[in-house]
Amino acid sequence: MQRPGSRVTVERIESRILRTNPLGDPFVRDLAVYLPPSYYNNSTEYPTVFCLQGFTGGVWSWFNFQAWIPAMDERMDSLIASGVPEMILVFPDCFTRYGGSQYLDSSAVGDYESYLLEEVLPFVDQKYRTQKDRRFRGVMGKSSGGFGAITLALNRPDCFSAVACHSGDLYFEYCYIPDFPVAGRMIRKYGGIRSLIKNFHQISKTGKEDHALLNTIAMSACYSPNPDVKPHLFDLPFDEKTGKLRSLIWRKWKKHDPVEIVKRKGKSLADFGVVYLDCGNRDEFGLFVGAQIFVKELQKLGVAYVYEEFDGGHFHTQERYDVSLRRMAEYFRS
Amino acid sequence: MQRPGSRVTVERIESRILRTNPLGDPFVRDLAVYLPPSYYNNSTEYPTVFCLQGFTGGVWSWFNFQAWIPAMDERMDSLIASGVPEMILVFPDCFTRYGGSQYLDSSAVGDYESYLLEEVLPFVDQKYRTQKDRRFRGVMGKSSGGFGAITLALNRPDCFSAVACHSGDLYFEYCYIPDFPVAGRMIRKYGGIRSLIKNFHQISKTGKEDHALLNTIAMSACYSPNPDVKPHLFDLPFDEKTGKLRSLIWRKWKKHDPVEIVKRKGKSLADFGVVYLDCGNRDEFGLFVGAQIFVKELQKLGVAYVYEEFDGGHFHTQERYDVSLRRMAEYFRS
Amino acid sequence: MQRPGSRVTVERIESRILRTNPLGDPFVRDLAVYLPPSYYNNSTEYPTVFCLQGFTGGVWSWFNFQAWIPAMDERMDSLIASGVPEMILVFPDCFTRYGGSQYLDSSAVGDYESYLLEEVLPFVDQKYRTQKDRRFRGVMGKSSGGFGAITLALNRPDCFSAVACHSGDLYFEYCYIPDFPVAGRMIRKYGGIRSLIKNFHQISKTGKEDHALLNTIAMSACYSPNPDVKPHLFDLPFDEKTGKLRSLIWRKWKKHDPVEIVKRKGKSLADFGVVYLDCGNRDEFGLFVGAQIFVKELQKLGVAYVYEEFDGGHFHTQERYDVSLRRMAEYFRS
Amino acid sequence: MQRPGSRVTVERIESRILRTNPLGDPFVRDLAVYLPPSYYNNSTEYPTVFCLQGFTGGVWSWFNFQAWIPAMDERMDSLIASGVPEMILVFPDCFTRYGGSQYLDSSAVGDYESYLLEEVLPFVDQKYRTQKDRRFRGVMGKSSGGFGAITLALNRPDCFSAVACHSGDLYFEYCYIPDFPVAGRMIRKYGGIRSLIKNFHQISKTGKEDHALLNTIAMSACYSPNPDVKPHLFDLPFDEKTGKLRSLIWRKWKKHDPVEIVKRKGKSLADFGVVYLDCGNRDEFGLFVGAQIFVKELQKLGVAYVYEEFDGGHFHTQERYDVSLRRMAEYFRS
Repeated sequence: MQRPGSRVTVERIESRILRTNPLGDPFVRDLAVYLPPSYYNNSTEYPTVFCLQGFTGGVWSWFNFQAWIPAMDERMDSLIASGVPEMILVFPDCFTRYGGSQYLDSSAVGDYESYLLEEVLPFVDQKYRTQKDRRFRGVMGKSSGGFGAITLALNRPDCFSAVACHSGDLYFEYCYIPDFPVAGRMIRKYGGIRSLIKNFHQISKTGKEDHALLNTIAMSACYSPNPDVKPHLFDLPFDEKTGKLRSLIWRKWKKHDPVEIVKRKGKSLADFGVVYLDCGNRDEFGLFVGAQIFVKELQKLGVAYVYEEFDGGHFHTQERYDVSLRRMAEYFRS
Repeated sequence: MQRPGSRVTVERIESRILRTNPLGDPFVRDLAVYLPPSYYNNSTEYPTVFCLQGFTGGVWSWFNFQAWIPAMDERMDSLIASGVPEMILVFPDCFTRYGGSQYLDSSAVGDYESYLLEEVLPFVDQKYRTQKDRRFRGVMGKSSGGFGAITLALNRPDCFSAVACHSGDLYFEYCYIPDFPVAGRMIRKYGGIRSLIKNFHQISKTGKEDHALLNTIAMSACYSPNPDVKPHLFDLPFDEKTGKLRSLIWRKWKKHDPVEIVKRKGKSLADFGVVYLDCGNRDEFGLFVGAQIFVKELQKLGVAYVYEEFDGGHFHTQERYDVSLRRMAEYFRS
Repeated sequence: MQRPGSRVTVERIESRILRTNPLGDPFVRDLAVYLPPSYYNNSTEYPTVFCLQGFTGGVWSWFNFQAWIPAMDERMDSLIASGVPEMILVFPDCFTRYGGSQYLDSSAVGDYESYLLEEVLPFVDQKYRTQKDRRFRGVMGKSSGGFGAITLALNRPDCFSAVACHSGDLYFEYCYIPDFPVAGRMIRKYGGIRSLIKNFHQISKTGKEDHALLNTIAMSACYSPNPDVKPHLFDLPFDEKTGKLRSLIWRKWKKHDPVEIVKRKGKSLADFGVVYLDCGNRDEFGLFVGAQIFVKELQKLGVAYVYEEFDGGHFHTQERYDVSLRRMAEYFRS
Repeated sequence: MQRPGSRVTVERIESRILRTNPLGDPFVRDLAVYLPPSYYNNSTEYPTVFCLQGFTGGVWSWFNFQAWIPAMDERMDSLIASGVPEMILVFPDCFTRYGGSQYLDSSAVGDYESYLLEEVLPFVDQKYRTQKDRRFRGVMGKSSGGFGAITLALNRPDCFSAVACHSGDLYFEYCYIPDFPVAGRMIRKYGGIRSLIKNFHQISKTGKEDHALLNTIAMSACYSPNPDVKPHLFDLPFDEKTGKLRSLIWRKWKKHDPVEIVKRKGKSLADFGVVYLDCGNRDEFGLFVGAQIFVKELQKLGVAYVYEEFDGGHFHTQERYDVSLRRMAEYFRS
């Protein structure tokens, strides 16, 4: 296979911010950077897109071998070969012991938003020939990565002017609540949350019910950290004994729901060049509802966006990235 | 097969109350009554148990042929043969065009609670040699029938003194909300709720997603009727366009949630002889959570109950009825 | 609901042939007979159709209550109301301890073909005003009932001149072999076939894997009976220890495969008025393959038939009966 | 994460043998080689194990990021850290357009057995400090990789003296036949095999039914190549129109079934130091049957082996590799 000359470089960043993360996760992190074919042939500066993985994904998931499905660099190569303007893609590592960080700062997980914006972003801008202005910087992701992208866009419009949220975790009522009875049952099976956390490395992690449990734990650590609850430092959104929702904790979760944040901060997106959302019309987590609520809020605010509901579910949707990457690249050059 | 002499009689009741039901469902209804083996050999009076079907169940579902699974009369025969005291079982028909009535009075469905207590109950007491006192009357059911049983017990302790709620629809947050994104999607697919209702007889009703839709429609008609919404006379609990929960409508639903009712009326159950709940520990609708919340409220109120969480899911649990029928029969004779 | 005057009568037949059946199943059997609306208004004779249930189905399964799905008598009523000629429908009971008989004579199960043709058929012809000629007699069924219908038609063209095989068990390689590894595993789990048979009444019967096991046991008893293998009197088609196919036993099975029988006896169907087969194009047991092989053999033999491959799977296909019943009724009157 | 000093090197081999492969797959192939921690600290020679991927797996699948599941190099590192003797692991690339080669020579796919043994093996032995004798060479794999490992061991005992077959494709009756009705249906849906092959890059490849189709195509190309069938050069094992098995073609398949080969060549394994098989007792493809048939043949031949049936299914079984790698390493040093 003749590669067109693009390159994926690997950096290792020693993070000051993650050094004290409470989960004991590594603070030296990989960073992958896709440099487009022309990068080493000139001295021009390129726009950048930060690419955020979903839950249980790591930086290298973007490049996992999957039969018949191009990895992210191959995908970008093909786009460029078809005429899409060149860009740098940045793949940070925000994986954690629980499977992800939601790209937030959390006292139970670590400060991953800060890591991303205060360490990774400046590092990239310093080391690579990037266009160092939000006008030429985008953020995209899928699922929890879509959540991360849209949340960062809303909270930090000073950093980005383009965002793509693919099948993002929006409207927590539908995307998380159905997991709770299962997670609650399994927590009881494991003898309670303390016992479970203590033996976390041993518990089964590959079944469908395992996923409901793991996702609930990770989201609790991200959305409802509580330094007083030892040793795990977070509150569950339901009563451990009965499984009943805890409304105070749930309210903490909802503060992170993009369909809430958009009401207050949606205006941030008004001067974005790309506000792109999509979702499968058969998404197994019902995320099309969150997407529709979100864009309706944008409509109210008069913010321009594109929403595409495609025929499909939550998984195996990589070719959707072609759409958002092309849009961003064209906007950056426009 | 030598039958032990019990009998199932079939009555047809012409209901005054159902005559004007808004769904145009029949107002002449079947009623099946199980008369125990000794019934025609003496002139004694018997306790009665009202048996309520789940969603999509009708009076005859109790007697459907299923390989290797005894029908309700065979089940009661076996119990009696093993020494359980004799009882009369009453099987009313509260099926509706949408699949069920939840045994409530609803302006969008019909007044099925009234039908049951003001027409069926007196009819049975008049026609059969029953012990005509709440002390000797029970109500039981599974799933939506469990909901009906526990709701009737809470609301009408003047009628019953024994209740069994098997895998009942409790804690609506877990048992209904997961259906909403699917139901919303299908409503949109069918061109909106009006169009769907108009063509209700034609829509597919056998798939898993169909069930989410049908259940949502039926529960809306039961829990949030609204005479002003023509022609279907009920509100959906979510916005038809986006799928977002409508909090006012949801509150109407929650007023029917037994975990709410028990707070106000749980004391009603204090002088019951049997308050029995069970649920599978892998119930697909997470109903074990509702059961646990419910019994915790009973505990607070000092009301005696039995709760059993058995190993299994929501379906194929008929042998659980043996447990509650036996308990009731023994209580009635005690 | 105003019923159009049809009637379902229930007979009890004391069978001489089933009296000594080796499974100890009842030899007094129910028989349901559908008499069309005009039956009691005149003295005319009617054509008859024998209706055969699938595996795990009994005579009363035809009349089980299922929400929104008409029972067989309601279905026939509607057809007649729409102009289809009247017929008598006969519903024999060939259920067994293992879930079915395949309507065959088997030394391990009982002689159900003989029961059907030598006892039920004459009984019906004697007791009811039937047209007592094969020209006016049909047989239909679904799944194992479709197998039974097509097998009886091939073997006993002296009895029938119309046959409908809905989603029938054809081409055993695809419809049965996939169950064998599962069945073998469960047999080992239960401590071997002898131990399993001894505790047959206790084993779980409602899960998906249970079905693979039960079906394999029942088919073994029907297709490869062996009086020397005590106590169960049949051979499994695979080695109990390893699970490997036993080719001699498999050959016994294949002798019952309609796609084999048709080669020798397909000519029997040449003077049938209706040879109707159908199958869902997504049938979970791949039965569309068997149907296609079967009709290709008919084609070679120059036998007329109708084959319809409809959009759907193996389950919830009752409305297909409308097609075959209508065809038969019109042929009988033609 | 402090890495213990092992290394994965990447080679690119330009293959003479694959140059003319009929699928137009690349003939320059990656080769990954795991060099244990001490490799660069001395001049000793190491045993080697060839590791073969399953269907749809490529060389890099061994190193895909999966949350909580160590990649193959991390796994080997941990084993070594726990005292297991060091080895070199070799990861060849035998992926093809259809998803795999079964490590066979096929005129429809390419000569992958030859590539592996005549090009990769000598290359490794020349370039790395391996112990260049079959006594110190093993082969392992899972699923189609398990098939490849056991097949190579049987056919080429001159190359290896240790083999591990994890959940291998054995006993084709159970592991492949259930896919055929689905594959046949989809081939018809795509307008026939020629049309499907022509548009192969476009067809959906991620659903469950897609897998049945893809696997059937790939296995046909590997097991029943036929240069006369243009353009795809292989025979399907069933009739394209009806779906019926073609016995001549099926016989060609069965010639590749390890449970057949072992009868003739099982003696080859008599002087192996490790003959290890395992399978999950709930393997979705029933592969435990093939494994049991296989080892029973070994028993007859008096060949020593270890077979472990573990509690689990076909997927997420990576930790099983620890068992076989440890056994091999200990044997090589013994």
